[in-house]
Amino acid sequence: MHETCDAEIESLGARPNFPVRLGIIGGGQLARMTAIAALPLGVDVVVLERNPHSPAARLSPDCIVGDWADRETLLKFASRCDVITLENEFVDASALTALEQSGHAVFPTAASIALTQDKLTQKQALHRARLNVPEFARVSSPEEIAAAAQRFGWPLLLKTRRNGYDGKGNFTLRSGADVEAGWRALGGGQNELMSEAFFPFTKELATIVTRGRDGTATVYPVVETIQRDHVCHVIKAPADIPAELAERATRTALRAVEAVGGVGSFGVEMFLTAAGELAVNELAPRVHNSGHYTIEACECSQFENHVRAVMGWPLGSPRLIAPAAVMLNLLGTCKAPGRPGRWRAALAAPGAHVHLYGKAVSSAGRKMGHVTALGNSVAEAFARAERAAREIRFEDHP
Amino acid sequence: MHETCDAEIESLGARPNFPVRLGIIGGGQLARMTAIAALPLGVDVVVLERNPHSPAARLSPDCIVGDWADRETLLKFASRCDVITLENEFVDASALTALEQSGHAVFPTAASIALTQDKLTQKQALHRARLNVPEFARVSSPEEIAAAAQRFGWPLLLKTRRNGYDGKGNFTLRSGADVEAGWRALGGGQNELMSEAFFPFTKELATIVTRGRDGTATVYPVVETIQRDHVCHVIKAPADIPAELAERATRTALRAVEAVGGVGSFGVEMFLTAAGELAVNELAPRVHNSGHYTIEACECSQFENHVRAVMGWPLGSPRLIAPAAVMLNLLGTCKAPGRPGRWRAALAAPGAHVHLYGKAVSSAGRKMGHVTALGNSVAEAFARAERAAREIRFEDHP
Repeated sequence: MHETCDAEIESLGARPNFPVRLGIIGGGQLARMTAIAALPLGVDVVVLERNPHSPAARLSPDCIVGDWADRETLLKFASRCDVITLENEFVDASALTALEQSGHAVFPTAASIALTQDKLTQKQALHRARLNVPEFARVSSPEEIAAAAQRFGWPLLLKTRRNGYDGKGNFTLRSGADVEAGWRALGGGQNELMSEAFFPFTKELATIVTRGRDGTATVYPVVETIQRDHVCHVIKAPADIPAELAERATRTALRAVEAVGGVGSFGVEMFLTAAGELAVNELAPRVHNSGHYTIEACECSQFENHVRAVMGWPLGSPRLIAPAAVMLNLLGTCKAPGRPGRWRAALAAPGAHVHLYGKAVSSAGRKMGHVTALGNSVAEAFARAERAAREIRFEDHP
Repeated sequence: MHETCDAEIESLGARPNFPVRLGIIGGGQLARMTAIAALPLGVDVVVLERNPHSPAARLSPDCIVGDWADRETLLKFASRCDVITLENEFVDASALTALEQSGHAVFPTAASIALTQDKLTQKQALHRARLNVPEFARVSSPEEIAAAAQRFGWPLLLKTRRNGYDGKGNFTLRSGADVEAGWRALGGGQNELMSEAFFPFTKELATIVTRGRDGTATVYPVVETIQRDHVCHVIKAPADIPAELAERATRTALRAVEAVGGVGSFGVEMFLTAAGELAVNELAPRVHNSGHYTIEACECSQFENHVRAVMGWPLGSPRLIAPAAVMLNLLGTCKAPGRPGRWRAALAAPGAHVHLYGKAVSSAGRKMGHVTALGNSVAEAFARAERAAREIRFEDHP
């Protein structure tokens, strides 16, 4: 119903603190889904993004196009926000520290981002908190890689300490013959590297931990993640593991986020061996692909809880509202317009919730959207989601 | 995860038909919730609204501020949209006809809006379709009102044929002494009026019908609506009525929307007497306050299904995903900033989904937001929603 808003009413003016303004650094699909969750809470979103056609820019009338590496741009952006958060961990932590020192509220904090965005300091923090992690070492030369391999054995993982994601910045060394190639491939000498022992996992688990500004935290169900080419492909919720193990994974994830002083929703990726040994693989200081299923499947999504957490508001329940849920990523296969093929057939699939990120073009492996379905079992949810997902191809349709 | 979108990819360009652009005439909370549902389907929203600070403008980078009564503004707006829809029924139908004649896709159609926005022609269409409606008559003078009262008895309802909502444009005549007052109050002589027999209902029921461009339709659960001061206040889903009656109400609602050739989500309000007699009270050719609960409570919300319908896409399921749901409106009580009081306490209420419409100022009776909760029973859902709703007051908080 349209309601006229007469001049007399508007003349009252609003307190500057309502609606509240949440700034998001980065305008990809994570910012977009966060904005969609923020709006019903009366939170307006301001986006800072380099690309003017970003997924989040499509729903924010207040999108600043600029480089977050530029301090002046960051400060201009910050002046329009009540609270600032990030959709990726690649923002220079010292720039965030400068924002904090200028009196801006930044969550996760600059210190937490600094600790987490460097995979070496992240692992050190987890290790100090007595959490099980694969063995790791800083490596500054091919010789130090060889020395690490002597301690950890082959295969050995070589990783850039910063800016890696979805397998980018990782290199698997199968023997000493690979050391030089790995060193060159990851830009050794220019980029800081670390090595990591291969962890003989049989399953990858993940969960989302949302932790408030006051330290109260809530943990989402432990899910199984199935990767394809190092990219999250399938999420099965809940993971098919014994209750004792799920509880252990829940405690582990919570302690991991506490170890880095996290505020907001964090993705926690874990390895599980056949013998039931659990290790923390990686923390992401942000909402995470393994938690997209929570939009439909949980009482309060990872996105809404992220907003609640960074605003300093009480957290919602991460409880599953159905026995099971499955999420399938929709990945591009080639360079093509971002228009999904067989769209009507996908929408006709019963019980499937289709999400597109509004990207104008696809490319191989690019995350274009996802599908979530609920079910009485993971198998049922998988079948429902798959029926929609298999119809959607990003190709140059006639 | 931030994904850079390199120039080579962008240079491919996108087909102009993706993302699809849905134009919404009106920028209130209905447009806002429709936009939130449209975005995940890869649908960008263009809003036409007179007020630059409308609820929907807060999430559309493409908001045209202008008057929809102005044909040139409408045509400029339409040129930026693939499909056009409305969030209110007060747009001049002849302007919509002009849009259609210029080749624009408008749903609901101009003919359907014309039939529905005039309460007299709406009632005539329902009557022609052999649906039970309260007796009614066109009245062009106080004498004709008195004549209608002779046929229908007292009390008699006097209504403006157009532009009424939430009790505005209605007047109850208790006796012949009220005729002159009613005639003047509703602007008789200037506004076209109709009279309606008082229908002795004991319950008000409602449902949402979503009907596609191809005539396929789906009907949401029948709910009970409780009005306060003529404004929707509580929705209880499902209504506590026998299955036979629910089926009858479902068929009635579907036939009512078919009778006006509706496309999109339509609200259907019905009266129920103690004896189980059912009558159609009113159709709204748009998403409706009685369907806000569907956001969390149904597999596919009234908003998503409206988008699917007007785009010509397959409809989703209106199935309840919990045994019961309750929605409570959050109404303003006075002129004050739109900032909700005791917000943290409201968010701490378990299981309550709080929606604010982002209005900068409140006034008495203004719809500022709503709360929905699910439960195993209507009583449980009501208690959950009420626990959050009772905390929220729009007052001038210190």
